[in-house]
Amino acid sequence: MAEKIVVALGGNALQSGKSEPTAEAQLKVVRNTCERIADISDMGYEVAVVHGNGPQVGRILLASETAKDVTPAMPFDVCGAMSQGYIGYHLQQALKYALNKRNKNIPVVTLATQMIVEPDDPGFKNPTKPIGPFYTEEEAKALQEEKGYTMKEDAGRGWRRVVASPIPRKIVEIDAVKKLWDSTIVITCGGGGIPVIENADGSLEGTAAVIDKDFAAELLAEQVDADVLMILTEVEKVAINFNKPNQENLSNMNLADAARYCAEGQFAPGSMLPKVQAAMKFVRAYPSKKAIITSLDKAIDALNGKTGTVITFA
Amino acid sequence: MAEKIVVALGGNALQSGKSEPTAEAQLKVVRNTCERIADISDMGYEVAVVHGNGPQVGRILLASETAKDVTPAMPFDVCGAMSQGYIGYHLQQALKYALNKRNKNIPVVTLATQMIVEPDDPGFKNPTKPIGPFYTEEEAKALQEEKGYTMKEDAGRGWRRVVASPIPRKIVEIDAVKKLWDSTIVITCGGGGIPVIENADGSLEGTAAVIDKDFAAELLAEQVDADVLMILTEVEKVAINFNKPNQENLSNMNLADAARYCAEGQFAPGSMLPKVQAAMKFVRAYPSKKAIITSLDKAIDALNGKTGTVITFA
Repeated sequence: MAEKIVVALGGNALQSGKSEPTAEAQLKVVRNTCERIADISDMGYEVAVVHGNGPQVGRILLASETAKDVTPAMPFDVCGAMSQGYIGYHLQQALKYALNKRNKNIPVVTLATQMIVEPDDPGFKNPTKPIGPFYTEEEAKALQEEKGYTMKEDAGRGWRRVVASPIPRKIVEIDAVKKLWDSTIVITCGGGGIPVIENADGSLEGTAAVIDKDFAAELLAEQVDADVLMILTEVEKVAINFNKPNQENLSNMNLADAARYCAEGQFAPGSMLPKVQAAMKFVRAYPSKKAIITSLDKAIDALNGKTGTVITFA
Repeated sequence: MAEKIVVALGGNALQSGKSEPTAEAQLKVVRNTCERIADISDMGYEVAVVHGNGPQVGRILLASETAKDVTPAMPFDVCGAMSQGYIGYHLQQALKYALNKRNKNIPVVTLATQMIVEPDDPGFKNPTKPIGPFYTEEEAKALQEEKGYTMKEDAGRGWRRVVASPIPRKIVEIDAVKKLWDSTIVITCGGGGIPVIENADGSLEGTAAVIDKDFAAELLAEQVDADVLMILTEVEKVAINFNKPNQENLSNMNLADAARYCAEGQFAPGSMLPKVQAAMKFVRAYPSKKAIITSLDKAIDALNGKTGTVITFA
């Protein structure tokens, strides 16, 4: 039986900080990323891919709000759906080609994926994630009144809309993911999934929220009974005392270690912390399995046990 | 064995001409549309859904071009991918709810779908489909020079970019559609599919083109061996001598009749003609099967043989 792996791609796997934020530049980065994902598939793993969408959904929203006098602005859930189409299209096109080059005729497809969040998630009480363009104080107050947005001043740069970052609870399209799993590489839960709330009558309704893609990938890994949750980011290993003279790069971390480091504040919120938390959640749910945090370029070495940070239960 | 049906949704199944072109208004129309699709599923059919995207992709492009000094404009293939995410998300959300109400627990999912077109398709020699915003003559000439766009004057209203409308040749993600078919309602080939060209090395590359969604639905129906190709539009039946005193609504049309009517110029290009041509192509490929052209509201009656225009081989 092939081992199953869920690969979570960070922002640097989609866009380079050095180049223009164009679709053409994204495609170039994605092509390189997909060579590495194809390598993982070539090792014999059954793969699913989850990707972030922060910069992309921000720009879709920005274009939409900028053009709002010409054509109606799109709500944030729809911007998320559009970003899944955009990024998923690039990934499936590039990954299929990378697989073909390896003589692996494996279908690749992106699923538009909704993620149920809870309306009483504490995140909704205190939204913190800034999205979209900057506004003047006046404009911000007007939006707050008109549309009920929560607006906050952003470090002297102007006012921005902030939304919640709730915990992902349920992948709506999980059945389709499972049906495809053993034959097809599925790109799913893009941007953490399109955030939706379940109404009392069972209907779903889009909501403005940012879901952490690492937590979404973790939930997916649990639901498909994956053997490995691999979170790819900019660094080869998780470190404690990061950027200090006594920085220590970790090759292994068990649940107890990880909990202690978290309590010590070793990991930056919104950056390494959610990755470590997602990894911890996975091995807590499946004590015999493992999570790996490493960089895209070291993914294969990490799967071969040569580098990366491996998070295990014991 | 359940009969298989491919349902092609026209623009009026997604947006009402009477309301604002907002996402909220679209969702309202889509909810009604999905009640009818759920009815078809409830009759025992295995269903796949193909939808148009003309107005939506036009507005995505318009927003993107309008905001281009703030954030880079997206290429047309990416706008198509975004429209698949947008429309597919609404359809899968609303259809799942409509099925739940009928106690039918059937998964529903949208696949980002690429469609291969041929670079030497005659459509590319003489692009005719206007897309995106209007420009002044000067702006148009500049775009022609800078980006190689084909720009045409549009009936005195200004200059617009025109793109090809090539014939769809191959659904790239057809394997995933087939894997899901017997368990899942798949929304695929949205907007006719994201137009891509196959390079000599087998890699795919997005291109600026508008693919007719009825031809895409027909190709899908052929590939999944569908029993019925159902094309939903604004009228209950196909008519000859349309809008004339001797208008005749057709209940049946065989291939020979249809060919004769086409030769007589009975059907408007870009409107009823491609629907009839798609229907003809399907029954020519599968002489024992049928295509139906009718309105969304009459879909069930048409499947029960009470109305609509049924196109058969003989």
